[in-house]
Amino acid sequence: MNSFLQMIETAWRDKNTLVCVGLDPDLEKVPTNLRSSTNPLFQFNKAIIDATADLVCAYKPQFAYYAAIGAERDLELTIQHIHDRHPGIAVILDAKRGDIGSTADKYVQEAFDRYGADAVTVNPYMGGDTLAPFFARKDKGVIVLCRTSNPGASDIQDLVSDGKKLYRLVAEKAVHSWNANKNVLLVVGATYPRELGEIRAIVGDMPLLVPGIGAQGGDVQAAVTSGKTPAGSGLVINSSRGILYAGKGDDFARAARDATLSLRDEINRYR
Amino acid sequence: MNSFLQMIETAWRDKNTLVCVGLDPDLEKVPTNLRSSTNPLFQFNKAIIDATADLVCAYKPQFAYYAAIGAERDLELTIQHIHDRHPGIAVILDAKRGDIGSTADKYVQEAFDRYGADAVTVNPYMGGDTLAPFFARKDKGVIVLCRTSNPGASDIQDLVSDGKKLYRLVAEKAVHSWNANKNVLLVVGATYPRELGEIRAIVGDMPLLVPGIGAQGGDVQAAVTSGKTPAGSGLVINSSRGILYAGKGDDFARAARDATLSLRDEINRYR
Repeated sequence: MNSFLQMIETAWRDKNTLVCVGLDPDLEKVPTNLRSSTNPLFQFNKAIIDATADLVCAYKPQFAYYAAIGAERDLELTIQHIHDRHPGIAVILDAKRGDIGSTADKYVQEAFDRYGADAVTVNPYMGGDTLAPFFARKDKGVIVLCRTSNPGASDIQDLVSDGKKLYRLVAEKAVHSWNANKNVLLVVGATYPRELGEIRAIVGDMPLLVPGIGAQGGDVQAAVTSGKTPAGSGLVINSSRGILYAGKGDDFARAARDATLSLRDEINRYR
Repeated sequence: MNSFLQMIETAWRDKNTLVCVGLDPDLEKVPTNLRSSTNPLFQFNKAIIDATADLVCAYKPQFAYYAAIGAERDLELTIQHIHDRHPGIAVILDAKRGDIGSTADKYVQEAFDRYGADAVTVNPYMGGDTLAPFFARKDKGVIVLCRTSNPGASDIQDLVSDGKKLYRLVAEKAVHSWNANKNVLLVVGATYPRELGEIRAIVGDMPLLVPGIGAQGGDVQAAVTSGKTPAGSGLVINSSRGILYAGKGDDFARAARDATLSLRDEINRYR
């Protein structure tokens, strides 16, 4: 089995958690005493990771937060720390890549070889050939945007073609055309539980990455009941700000742990 | 007027060129004597830039080629070199960004504040709200993927909704909803001259970034005649591999200049 999916499924089963912590560290929100350290984003992440590792199935660093301030080294150190200290926890690089084949090869190299991520998010707008170099990496996960969590997601994703909304067509392609290596997942926002249910019905047991809980307003109960598989699983439910900034003082890591625990338990109540 | 568009239009007029050189340097294709230098991608780019600056309206570094090998510093140095030594030439960061609002803010910061690009490419799949932070930067150019140059572009972009293909709907949104600051452009591949003509008819004088000439098989005559404005302009025509690797030895910069000159003249023949 694909090693990314194996990591996720093992964590679901053995640790009884569907929680993914989004590592979107904003320097302005990092506690003051960390801000002046070398690699402050990494130091912040490390504290969050070490406080939550037993409660999560994955971590999802958001590329933009590092790229905005030239903190690629913090991103490298963060992923390396997870692999070294908490082996078995999957790292999803949230970078939403998508480009023509020769360029996609470079993005594959970036996500999997440079950063050592276990999975990466990709954008389907440019078509299946632009995603093929990702799908070809059998050992890795490829998480395709399907129905995103933002208010304007409907602009393009809800357009109806041949009687079907675009996000349904993307879900169908994911199942029937793109998943030869059994390494494809989809992104579906928690803010749209109805769409989550529709997509679950299309994709069978394919795991879904579900952002939008917390700051974005997604309801946990609605997301879990709509999105879960018959076995009560199949979801990687991300929370970023709700966990990273649960506390503002020196006890931020403890507050993050409490928030993660509480989210894990809330999710498990509805599985 | 928006300063990115002003740079482009000034170059079109004063330098009589629609050529954009894509800076997609691949370490394996960089001449051997540069490979061992510090910042070899920058050294390669610098030679290409200094040999072609009088012949182009823009440079377009492709983010993936730097990110794949941790060469962000080369990208920074490249953009800084263009601004310092060749002021007036626009830099388009080809990164195809697209994410929810809070993350999009970080990508805006990355492209315009960290790297100092004059424009950035973005992906419309997630919807208008995810592009709004880019559009809000009145001084910068925002170049939205519309009909891309790759073979699989039709997978999603040609889906018909309400009797119109998706790329036409994106073009209409670009003109009617997204362009309040007059800083929006579209990407339309040279490999699809018919679609280029259709999109030109929708967008009036809006400039189009046209990749796909050369290695990707786009025909210059067809692209220019289909895509130009009535005034014989409105196009930023990109060539990457055809210019960067026109020569393989120590005379690569001279060969790049010859290829750029030849492309400029070929384009001008059909304007």
